Amino acid sequence: MGADFDPSKERLVAGLMSGTSADGVDVALVRIDGSGVNVSVSLVAHDVLKFSTAVRQRIQSCQGAAAGSARDITLLDAYVGELFAHALLHLCKKAGIGPEEVSAAGSHGQTLYHNPTPTPLPGFTVTSSLQVGNPSVIAERTGITVVSDFRSRDMAAGGQGAPLAPYLDYILYHHRSRSRIILNIGGISNLTAMPAGAGLDDLIAFDTGPGNCLMDLAAWHYSGGKQTFDSDGAMARKGTVDTDMLAALLDHPFIKKAPPKSADKEEFGTSFLDQILLRHAGMPAQDILATLAAFTVKSINSAILEFCIQSARYEEIIVSGGGANNPVLMESLQAALPKLIITRSDEYGIPGKAKEAVLMAVLADATVHGWPSNVHAATGARHPAVLGSITPGGSFFEKAPTRTGLE
Amino acid sequence: MGADFDPSKERLVAGLMSGTSADGVDVALVRIDGSGVNVSVSLVAHDVLKFSTAVRQRIQSCQGAAAGSARDITLLDAYVGELFAHALLHLCKKAGIGPEEVSAAGSHGQTLYHNPTPTPLPGFTVTSSLQVGNPSVIAERTGITVVSDFRSRDMAAGGQGAPLAPYLDYILYHHRSRSRIILNIGGISNLTAMPAGAGLDDLIAFDTGPGNCLMDLAAWHYSGGKQTFDSDGAMARKGTVDTDMLAALLDHPFIKKAPPKSADKEEFGTSFLDQILLRHAGMPAQDILATLAAFTVKSINSAILEFCIQSARYEEIIVSGGGANNPVLMESLQAALPKLIITRSDEYGIPGKAKEAVLMAVLADATVHGWPSNVHAATGARHPAVLGSITPGGSFFEKAPTRTGLE
Repeated sequence: MGADFDPSKERLVAGLMSGTSADGVDVALVRIDGSGVNVSVSLVAHDVLKFSTAVRQRIQSCQGAAAGSARDITLLDAYVGELFAHALLHLCKKAGIGPEEVSAAGSHGQTLYHNPTPTPLPGFTVTSSLQVGNPSVIAERTGITVVSDFRSRDMAAGGQGAPLAPYLDYILYHHRSRSRIILNIGGISNLTAMPAGAGLDDLIAFDTGPGNCLMDLAAWHYSGGKQTFDSDGAMARKGTVDTDMLAALLDHPFIKKAPPKSADKEEFGTSFLDQILLRHAGMPAQDILATLAAFTVKSINSAILEFCIQSARYEEIIVSGGGANNPVLMESLQAALPKLIITRSDEYGIPGKAKEAVLMAVLADATVHGWPSNVHAATGARHPAVLGSITPGGSFFEKAPTRTGLE
Repeated sequence: MGADFDPSKERLVAGLMSGTSADGVDVALVRIDGSGVNVSVSLVAHDVLKFSTAVRQRIQSCQGAAAGSARDITLLDAYVGELFAHALLHLCKKAGIGPEEVSAAGSHGQTLYHNPTPTPLPGFTVTSSLQVGNPSVIAERTGITVVSDFRSRDMAAGGQGAPLAPYLDYILYHHRSRSRIILNIGGISNLTAMPAGAGLDDLIAFDTGPGNCLMDLAAWHYSGGKQTFDSDGAMARKGTVDTDMLAALLDHPFIKKAPPKSADKEEFGTSFLDQILLRHAGMPAQDILATLAAFTVKSINSAILEFCIQSARYEEIIVSGGGANNPVLMESLQAALPKLIITRSDEYGIPGKAKEAVLMAVLADATVHGWPSNVHAATGARHPAVLGSITPGGSFFEKAPTRTGLE
């Protein structure tokens, strides 16, 4: 493979991510130097290409157990590939970087279905995850070597294919003398607990339960589709937490389950919210929002108290994801955990909003060098694994291709 | 990448294929020596792992435009990966070869939907092909580097993603002074016309239309599901060709269309046969079979006369695929083309039944070396391309992985 993959040289790597909520493509250009978990990572450029409503609906029509069809999913695979390629080329242009300067691009793809539950079929029990966004389309349009399908290898090795974030968390936030919890509040919320001086295989990492997903769905519901989230927690702030409803929510088996565990968006999705709204039909919208916000905070709080504090005396929580921008969540979290210093990941060089795309870049860089990047203690996999599949771009092979006519 | 990929050394490569009819996995172990299209290829072992009826039905429930769902397709992706890995390990054991001796495995996967027709979606027009059989599952179970998803890159470059066979045909059958037609009669029938002394980019290759698919479906229909094909053409031999029905069949727009062209199994599938049976409700079964056999032969004959004979004076047809074992087809073909010498590919060192799996091995070997392997004159792609995605096995990287704890 190409000289670009010499780990003694600094390289530019791209990352592409679209979350389960299908809002748009997050794309990052990252400068990486060094080797293995000792790499240094700095953000060069970041952008979000928002999906139109039509695109989001096309994606959503293929998400979930019974959704989609062979044809719709096949078309979507190429289509999301085109969208990702477009986003990547657009960011390169904006940053004044030629695609030929980019050594690799990590593409998460768009998840259609994630099934970490061992499912018996004749002769084999399987777990699996389906991401669309065909890497050959991205490699062909950009000329860049693409690494994709990061979750499948970990799952094939007995893991849940999630969370992937702890690898980057470790690289960015490991500390010899401070014990830290790294919390990402996206649609689903996940944390990585990192005792002072811990190695990559000593981390505790898992999904804590809902992040913004239920609040987002409720904001959408109450605004008649006009708001996709409760901006600044404005609605939640006006409401009062209903303690009975909160207690019932915290009774959810996922919250009580010991890690490793990963949550499906569907687990805290539309049908879950519908049940809540039905059961509390008379409750004012702001009280529902306030209680859902409290559910997110209490489930995080409970995860820390139940599953983390045995391992170290944690001093700091570093928060990223959309939830870091919701002052109601951040204030409640501080109130629930008064002894911990709560900071936002933005203060550590990688803005929270770019973190998932940066993760994809770091994972791609690991894979093209042959470095395992699953945190198997977090995913439950039996061993470290080099993640994903490599679709060669123009510079992947050192030599020019042989295609001589012959005899 | 590993020393295994030094093209100056002989290597063992595996190939895995499951056709659209989902009968089972074809697996081959191949010894390859040399570089680019100048490689020599010899078959070491070949086997077929037949799918049970339950497995075939599970696959078929996800094939076709409206079939399947996100969950079913996701589960099937891992499941077919397990089946392929099992077939590969089984053949290695049978052949007394350790998986660690195999430098790479090419996996076609199981096609669920193939859409070479440019399809406009908001902002982008796409073509695409969906194969399941997750390569991470195969790499994890076998430790072998897997190359998969061969069709997508060609399609991203404007091609139809098919046929792939001409690359192997060229390697096996190119001749300085003999002009040859290489014919594969599988479910769908395809040919490669190879003028004497032609280079890889001077070939004519395309699907000619039905191979055995319609006859197989009719045999299944008339036997009440007891026969999956008309063995030795026994039914067809008893029947008489209905010239009106044959003329109507040959009127199909696919037959008349100039190459490049690739046929979908659905184009000559169940609903097409149902129409025929409805229109000829009184006709005896053997006459239907005889006429369908004639349709296959005449469509091949017409393809050669319309689209090939301008390029060279062809002397020989080399036939592979299930159709090569159907004496009725072979005799009718010889009668239709009396001046051509018709031979079976088995006589050239690679048994016809192993050819598609051998193709997958040869394509994988090309990709791990960075050699383009699409025959773009045949697929319609704009340029040669390195096909597929590489999922690293144990020996893909030269160096042991770095995963040191740090600071």
